[in-house]
Amino acid sequence: MNFFKIRSLSEARAIIHDEVSRLKLEVERISIGACNGFIACENVYSEVDIPSFDRSTVDGYAVKIDDVMGATESIPAMLKLKGDSVMGEVMSETLQKGEAIYVPTGGMLPHGSDGVVMIEYSEQMSSDLILIRQPIAFGENIIYHGDDLKKEQLIIEAGKRINAYDMGLLAGAGINAINVYKKIKVAILSTGDEVVDCHLPIKMGQIRDINGYALMGLVSELGGEVVHKAIIRDDMNALKASVAESLEKADLVLLSGGSSVGTRDFTHQVIESFADGEILIHGISIKPGKPTIVGRAHNKLIFGLPGHPTASALVFEILVRPYMESVSNLKMKSIKVNAQITESIHSASGKDTFIMVNLAYEDNVLRAKPILGKSGLISLMTKASGYIHIESDQEGLYKGQDVNVYLFKRGEL
Amino acid sequence: MNFFKIRSLSEARAIIHDEVSRLKLEVERISIGACNGFIACENVYSEVDIPSFDRSTVDGYAVKIDDVMGATESIPAMLKLKGDSVMGEVMSETLQKGEAIYVPTGGMLPHGSDGVVMIEYSEQMSSDLILIRQPIAFGENIIYHGDDLKKEQLIIEAGKRINAYDMGLLAGAGINAINVYKKIKVAILSTGDEVVDCHLPIKMGQIRDINGYALMGLVSELGGEVVHKAIIRDDMNALKASVAESLEKADLVLLSGGSSVGTRDFTHQVIESFADGEILIHGISIKPGKPTIVGRAHNKLIFGLPGHPTASALVFEILVRPYMESVSNLKMKSIKVNAQITESIHSASGKDTFIMVNLAYEDNVLRAKPILGKSGLISLMTKASGYIHIESDQEGLYKGQDVNVYLFKRGEL
Repeated sequence: MNFFKIRSLSEARAIIHDEVSRLKLEVERISIGACNGFIACENVYSEVDIPSFDRSTVDGYAVKIDDVMGATESIPAMLKLKGDSVMGEVMSETLQKGEAIYVPTGGMLPHGSDGVVMIEYSEQMSSDLILIRQPIAFGENIIYHGDDLKKEQLIIEAGKRINAYDMGLLAGAGINAINVYKKIKVAILSTGDEVVDCHLPIKMGQIRDINGYALMGLVSELGGEVVHKAIIRDDMNALKASVAESLEKADLVLLSGGSSVGTRDFTHQVIESFADGEILIHGISIKPGKPTIVGRAHNKLIFGLPGHPTASALVFEILVRPYMESVSNLKMKSIKVNAQITESIHSASGKDTFIMVNLAYEDNVLRAKPILGKSGLISLMTKASGYIHIESDQEGLYKGQDVNVYLFKRGEL
Repeated sequence: MNFFKIRSLSEARAIIHDEVSRLKLEVERISIGACNGFIACENVYSEVDIPSFDRSTVDGYAVKIDDVMGATESIPAMLKLKGDSVMGEVMSETLQKGEAIYVPTGGMLPHGSDGVVMIEYSEQMSSDLILIRQPIAFGENIIYHGDDLKKEQLIIEAGKRINAYDMGLLAGAGINAINVYKKIKVAILSTGDEVVDCHLPIKMGQIRDINGYALMGLVSELGGEVVHKAIIRDDMNALKASVAESLEKADLVLLSGGSSVGTRDFTHQVIESFADGEILIHGISIKPGKPTIVGRAHNKLIFGLPGHPTASALVFEILVRPYMESVSNLKMKSIKVNAQITESIHSASGKDTFIMVNLAYEDNVLRAKPILGKSGLISLMTKASGYIHIESDQEGLYKGQDVNVYLFKRGEL
């Protein structure tokens, strides 16, 4: 029974966005060696200047630049060699006019020096005499105290997914552990009397749990954790019990397979059967993905995804992914690339239409080839690089037209 | 001491490529629920047709299309309702002329039907009489037996990194586990008397292990496993002992921090001190990254990466990453996007030059802003979306010119 009006894509997105604040993810403290891919839950500031002293970026001689002004190959400057800066140790000398001190790459500069001449442009004449054959500019080959980061400067913004370079920067600031959001816990329930898990024998008329495994992969690629996965028969009580268990264990419940009228009704009824259960969305004017249901119980969202693999994956990309990202406050720019569409596409007017495409360079132009075919075919999806979005007021696309392709975030075309 | 000639980038790549076949990664069998991100080490073929029977893609009535030809809202076709196809069960009826059978989405079709009319275009008049108000085409709303995959068809090619949809396809074929390469085991040794780990107190003149942690992140982002990480003083014996231990534990050794002449010499000497040790590359004409050393011992590569964070990261991207990908036979297209460079860049002639850039849309045009600054600054790297490559015979780049940006594979701009 469906007394709900079909929502537009933008209405559906707004409804889901309003739910974000209901879910508070747990926080954990994690050592920086293990924080890659986690999302910072608070701003991290440097407690020190980085570097904490003036360093040379080359192997060479710390000098006063006035002393080497005009130095050339044939008329070198002649300086008194006053010693070495030793790696990892304090350099307490102060350079006087006419003096040079050897500094290795990364070594600490003496006070009073304002440039470093690379060793290639010098010649040591005796234990205390050095020729310099090139002038240098003020500050040349020096990283100054605080150049990389100043004390109290922001290192990591809350909501950033930590990458390799962030780890380097945290290490540079001497930060050993940071607070991150725990992974979002997701339950995945595949519904249908015909669905059989892949390690069990199958009979004619039954099918394998394609969507359950694809959703497991999508959740883990997003940094979520699948805490419960089950296949449930089309039975109101079984589904209710499994959703109740999922709401205990998980932050988010994904029901998959409810494309037939019967299953849709069960999903609807189960959500409403919880004391605080509420249906938020029942049907969205998108193609594919129309029979999507979104509800809430115990302050947690329950997505009833369509049964066709392509539709299930697309609804995950356009609705579940943004929800999971917003819950963890993730600040990121998604990868959207420009490409030429290789064939004309007719779109359903009044519906937001999504088409999977495969990207490839041809004659040095990036081309997006639509992956057309029945949306029940998972084999098509494995060829997709991303998708294009034809908005509800657009007529369709002409062959050769420039389109934006939203890349699946797998780091590969 | 360096008696080696500086290698061009292409020479260096060729030398490293020739080493790939020396390393044979171990193989493990892994259940498909846990295989996301692993790389298939052999082709996987379907042992069954998917689906294994003809299925409906909608809730509706299986018919013979000739029986509903010309049916309209006002002049519907009238068919005898012969029963229901039940989800997950064999449909053994054979449809006769003038008959219809109800089939839910995903349900098995009866023999003799060649199309399914959506329930929306029908009206049930009595328990055995149904009106159909729309004609359909041959095969409409049917996925045929084998449409998704045929028996013996390739599901996953050797060298493919398994993604969410591959998991779905494997599940669809009833495959429970596959053989993948074990993660490449990597040892990361940061060298330098001045380097202190981030949980230890630091004195003036010392610095933190920035590169060690950035490399940990880069390795794990690529799907590798860091099996050993240590900070080693600039001492020949200590370095030799640590490299020897690393060669026992790991498939690949990354030495970081050897930018000063002293450390470079140690790296060189340590590699040569192994009975089968060989220096393959000592210096590459790239900027940044010139002082890179590559050697081999016990059939395993040892990369001596430059000490500056930017240089270390770039050499990882352009040399270590392709090596790790080739060892696991990874077949993928890297993400390369076209953007407009926001300022003119002068490049060092005769050298391959790499510039980190930050990508952002401005006025709907993707622009690449060079991240300029001293290559010792890790804070710059955290802003980078990717890099551009100015080849050794190019003069430089003009503001506004189109450039290819190689994205760091983190799924974000």
